[in-house]
Amino acid sequence: MNENKLLAALPKLFHQDSDLAVGPGDDCALIKFGGKYLLAAADQLIQDVHYFPDTPPEAVAAKLLKRNLSDIAAMGGIPRWTICTLACNGCSDEFFMRFFNALEACAKKYQCAIAGGDLAELPTSGTVATLTILGEVELEKVCLRSNARPGELIFVTGQLGDTLYSQHHLEFEPRLAEGRFLSENAFSCCMMDISDGLAADLPRLLERSSCGAHIQLDKLPCRNNCSWQSAIADGEDYELLFTTSADRAGKLLEVWPFDTPLSCIGQITADAGTVRYYQDAEEITLNGVNGYEHFRA
Amino acid sequence: MNENKLLAALPKLFHQDSDLAVGPGDDCALIKFGGKYLLAAADQLIQDVHYFPDTPPEAVAAKLLKRNLSDIAAMGGIPRWTICTLACNGCSDEFFMRFFNALEACAKKYQCAIAGGDLAELPTSGTVATLTILGEVELEKVCLRSNARPGELIFVTGQLGDTLYSQHHLEFEPRLAEGRFLSENAFSCCMMDISDGLAADLPRLLERSSCGAHIQLDKLPCRNNCSWQSAIADGEDYELLFTTSADRAGKLLEVWPFDTPLSCIGQITADAGTVRYYQDAEEITLNGVNGYEHFRA
Repeated sequence: MNENKLLAALPKLFHQDSDLAVGPGDDCALIKFGGKYLLAAADQLIQDVHYFPDTPPEAVAAKLLKRNLSDIAAMGGIPRWTICTLACNGCSDEFFMRFFNALEACAKKYQCAIAGGDLAELPTSGTVATLTILGEVELEKVCLRSNARPGELIFVTGQLGDTLYSQHHLEFEPRLAEGRFLSENAFSCCMMDISDGLAADLPRLLERSSCGAHIQLDKLPCRNNCSWQSAIADGEDYELLFTTSADRAGKLLEVWPFDTPLSCIGQITADAGTVRYYQDAEEITLNGVNGYEHFRA
Repeated sequence: MNENKLLAALPKLFHQDSDLAVGPGDDCALIKFGGKYLLAAADQLIQDVHYFPDTPPEAVAAKLLKRNLSDIAAMGGIPRWTICTLACNGCSDEFFMRFFNALEACAKKYQCAIAGGDLAELPTSGTVATLTILGEVELEKVCLRSNARPGELIFVTGQLGDTLYSQHHLEFEPRLAEGRFLSENAFSCCMMDISDGLAADLPRLLERSSCGAHIQLDKLPCRNNCSWQSAIADGEDYELLFTTSADRAGKLLEVWPFDTPLSCIGQITADAGTVRYYQDAEEITLNGVNGYEHFRA
């Protein structure tokens, strides 16, 4: 099975829980607790997969936290607490102190607190860091992958593609303020973050919404004038992909208070499971441009 | 730094949060959320460290969840949700399906729900599984490492030692019912689970409580008549270590409703940081019997 098939197969194994409003399959789980709603998600960061052996520990720690914050942003939520685990082989005291000092600095910057964690030894060389993020959101403001409706316009924040050589995969800003603005002001109730490339992530949103989409490749905000292939297939954009109704879109563009670019790149259709890509008016076949798979089994 | 020094140094780096009632350093974090109290903890399970390459995926999944459940038990809490991440190299579909089917069966058995997770590829052989457990507890019932007071008696559940060859490290039962009974009925407000051996874990509890302890080695419940060295130094007992006041101890032994053995093994003293071990009336020097270090840096 590839990553998508596994991610689709696994949640079907799991029993439901009456307080688990949204389980596996969205950017975060949504949990009813004490009359409020908790967000929870976890992500991993692995040496030689998500960063290089010579990436500074400060950059590793920040990326680990920021990619989790991006999941909170995608739900329209507010980050609160993190739990971090680290497994490594022969890491020095200096690595640990630099990693955790940077994690703390990043947590402070984004106003969340380190609540716990675990350290363990890997039997072979390498480092595996895992972080669970907890956040909160109001039920009436949460943004879900399943909320897209035909006719809605599709937007992305920031720019896409060229994520590795530009260092964007380390230097990105999680779109917390932008995601919260969209959810708080009811500009969107359907959002996800793009972490595996638009070509991989958009179908996941459409699957949950039983919709299709048209995408205008000529409207993609390509980082450093990269190709549309790079813009839809490179992983680690950590930008928000969201839908908004056609009659709210003009207002959104008018009041958008951020420097972060906002681009309308297409429209949701009723043709469930089908994504059509256009270059101006001409339909384009992707021919194997698939987005990034973090995992192949 | 060794594991204890690192575990002591790291939390000092982290800023406080007004809703984080207990941060790093106890079995779980305790978080005020929506008028209730959430428990959160994470633990890792690493091939060739915590299990063998030929350990069945079912046993790996169950151990991963159960060692986290043991942390909830140690707080006197109730488990609710889990987030599981898995990083492995070339794992088969069969491994995944067996692992997650077993994780679900174990989650169902202990009445918690799988809320989310992440899969990733390891660049080298091996498997690293991480699980974050979320639970709940009432503030007035929570059991903390910091609550021991001089004069209180020290108890352990179950048996200690000989954890590897007996397969106890895989087959243990998390002491959820026992922990909850102790917290609900106010028999204890100071508890932890023994995962690195009594000789390593007891000093952590004493450190948080600014107390010392006397331990009667002849009172240790040694699994399969193992030596007291094995009983205090083997990792992975996953038994509860708790204190109770001298005048409640008789009542506790009288009403204890479980088959799980309960052993009084010593007493808390005011001599902060000092653990004295006795064999009958004779004081014993440990001479380097230190408990298990999961991590050495």
